[in-house]
Amino acid sequence: MKKFINAVADVENEMIQGMVKAYPQYIKKLDCGNVLVRPQRNENKVMLLSGGGSGHEPGHAGYIGEGMLDAYVPGAVFTSPTPDMIYEGIKVIDNGKGVLLMVMNYTGDVMNFEMAAEMAAEDGIKVDHVIINDDVAVKDSTWTTGRRGVAGTFLVNKITGAKAESGASFEEVKAAAEKAIANVRTMGAAISPCTAPAAGRPGFEIGDDEIEIGIGVHGEPGTYRDKMMPADKIVDILLERILSDIDFNGREVAVLINSSGATPLMELYIINNHLADVLASKNIKIYKTFCGGFMTSMEMAGFSISLLRLDDELKELLDARASTPAFTCL
Amino acid sequence: MKKFINAVADVENEMIQGMVKAYPQYIKKLDCGNVLVRPQRNENKVMLLSGGGSGHEPGHAGYIGEGMLDAYVPGAVFTSPTPDMIYEGIKVIDNGKGVLLMVMNYTGDVMNFEMAAEMAAEDGIKVDHVIINDDVAVKDSTWTTGRRGVAGTFLVNKITGAKAESGASFEEVKAAAEKAIANVRTMGAAISPCTAPAAGRPGFEIGDDEIEIGIGVHGEPGTYRDKMMPADKIVDILLERILSDIDFNGREVAVLINSSGATPLMELYIINNHLADVLASKNIKIYKTFCGGFMTSMEMAGFSISLLRLDDELKELLDARASTPAFTCL
Repeated sequence: MKKFINAVADVENEMIQGMVKAYPQYIKKLDCGNVLVRPQRNENKVMLLSGGGSGHEPGHAGYIGEGMLDAYVPGAVFTSPTPDMIYEGIKVIDNGKGVLLMVMNYTGDVMNFEMAAEMAAEDGIKVDHVIINDDVAVKDSTWTTGRRGVAGTFLVNKITGAKAESGASFEEVKAAAEKAIANVRTMGAAISPCTAPAAGRPGFEIGDDEIEIGIGVHGEPGTYRDKMMPADKIVDILLERILSDIDFNGREVAVLINSSGATPLMELYIINNHLADVLASKNIKIYKTFCGGFMTSMEMAGFSISLLRLDDELKELLDARASTPAFTCL
Repeated sequence: MKKFINAVADVENEMIQGMVKAYPQYIKKLDCGNVLVRPQRNENKVMLLSGGGSGHEPGHAGYIGEGMLDAYVPGAVFTSPTPDMIYEGIKVIDNGKGVLLMVMNYTGDVMNFEMAAEMAAEDGIKVDHVIINDDVAVKDSTWTTGRRGVAGTFLVNKITGAKAESGASFEEVKAAAEKAIANVRTMGAAISPCTAPAAGRPGFEIGDDEIEIGIGVHGEPGTYRDKMMPADKIVDILLERILSDIDFNGREVAVLINSSGATPLMELYIINNHLADVLASKNIKIYKTFCGGFMTSMEMAGFSISLLRLDDELKELLDARASTPAFTCL
């Protein structure tokens, strides 16, 4: 393992401290532990809190800020944050208007967020959660019951954050989150693994001529393994699964081509070149495209495609002003 | 070589087409070749054109837009654009207020930009250029006479773009560029190579326990090779060179920690954790920090540190509104 780190045991803490030092205008760490909150919060809005294992940077601590998240609770690499830390986050940001928890569908995360929500509810805090499960690759997985929450989470957080920032009610904000979740689908593939620092070796092995179709964001198994093939063919395979899951015909969509980490923008653009043509040929209109590392798996080489079906409300929320360390929208 | 591409010969064209399809509101490709321009330009300003080899995405085509560049001319991977393409770009964006060429210091680029500028000047176009050479790692290199232009280019383009957008004169815009160049210094290191598609194999070899200090953005040799060491120690080495080159004592600075491609944000934040402490201990005040892949080398694992000394004018220009595919500033 060759990484720009110091002691393995310090990776998460040093990462979080380094992030806070880089973006003090956006992120404050609570003294009680690794709980990150907006330092100046708009108190006239519903609060949004997310959390999850580290290793997906900038997802999703990088999206704390105006128009997106109010708090993020990072766990250790690929490990859910603990209920007590989530609970501390909820308590600090609670302003009486309700705290909505944005939970990616992994068994450990769902369990810990539900426990934290119970603890907060006992304190009289208005709290609820939504579960993001955009990955069409597998029905159940080694990490989940049901579908996994992957890169489409960025789009769900953007939509929900904009709705909250607009001053909408708790019920309206939750409905916007559920609408985004109902309309977003993702699938990915990878060609090289990543190494969790504490493990010290790659999370899986893969041949020089192989690709894992439907890979998870922790390197967990996907749909099947195949021989490496041209980018256009991979796009066709992923799109076929996404487009057969819900009806995109005639719809406007947001496209997110997400790098797993080591895959450069050069390749994401090549992927988009074919993807845009295929969507046009299928009567699907691209409203906005995002290319980059929005929810990574450290240095894994791979990518995912997310499509979000849009209506007028979702377009307006997608375009709404946002200002966070990793994403800004005028 | 395992990459998400189709035919090797199509890499640059498909990449550029995919970028234009992703960001039609920001980038238009000219019919004459791979020349990228802002589709709607502010005609009340000096025009800025840059160019260089591909493989550094989002640098710098990703910075076409309001408050940054008006045109970018991408060459093949790690290859200067040709004089005729640069000339076409200059002609299209020329509005009589002058075209300033933002050239990174590589022998091929400097030669081709100077030839293009001569061609444009013969047409009566007001044109001049600045040379960005922020890398303190080597005095001359296999690719340059004098220092190389590396990630600090992003900061120079941001400053100069803001000055141009403000409606400043040609002479004032050039002076702002030169001021940014005079005040920015960069040095990097890498631990794994990248593979240019046309070459089909990694640009250099490096042991599992080795690091190249002072690496160039094409994988060209740096200052020296050493055994891999903790991140904090690498930061100390790079900072020592940067801080001894010009006097940063008591100054405010912008910090750019740039990923060479495969190095994840997790590691950039760990780097920043120590970097911020060292600067504080040396009486250097951090005004703003940028972490991410601003000028990459495809999938190379590595990073660079850039420091830009600031005064009131440079702070205002750094903070000015920008809207481009890869960087937005409210």
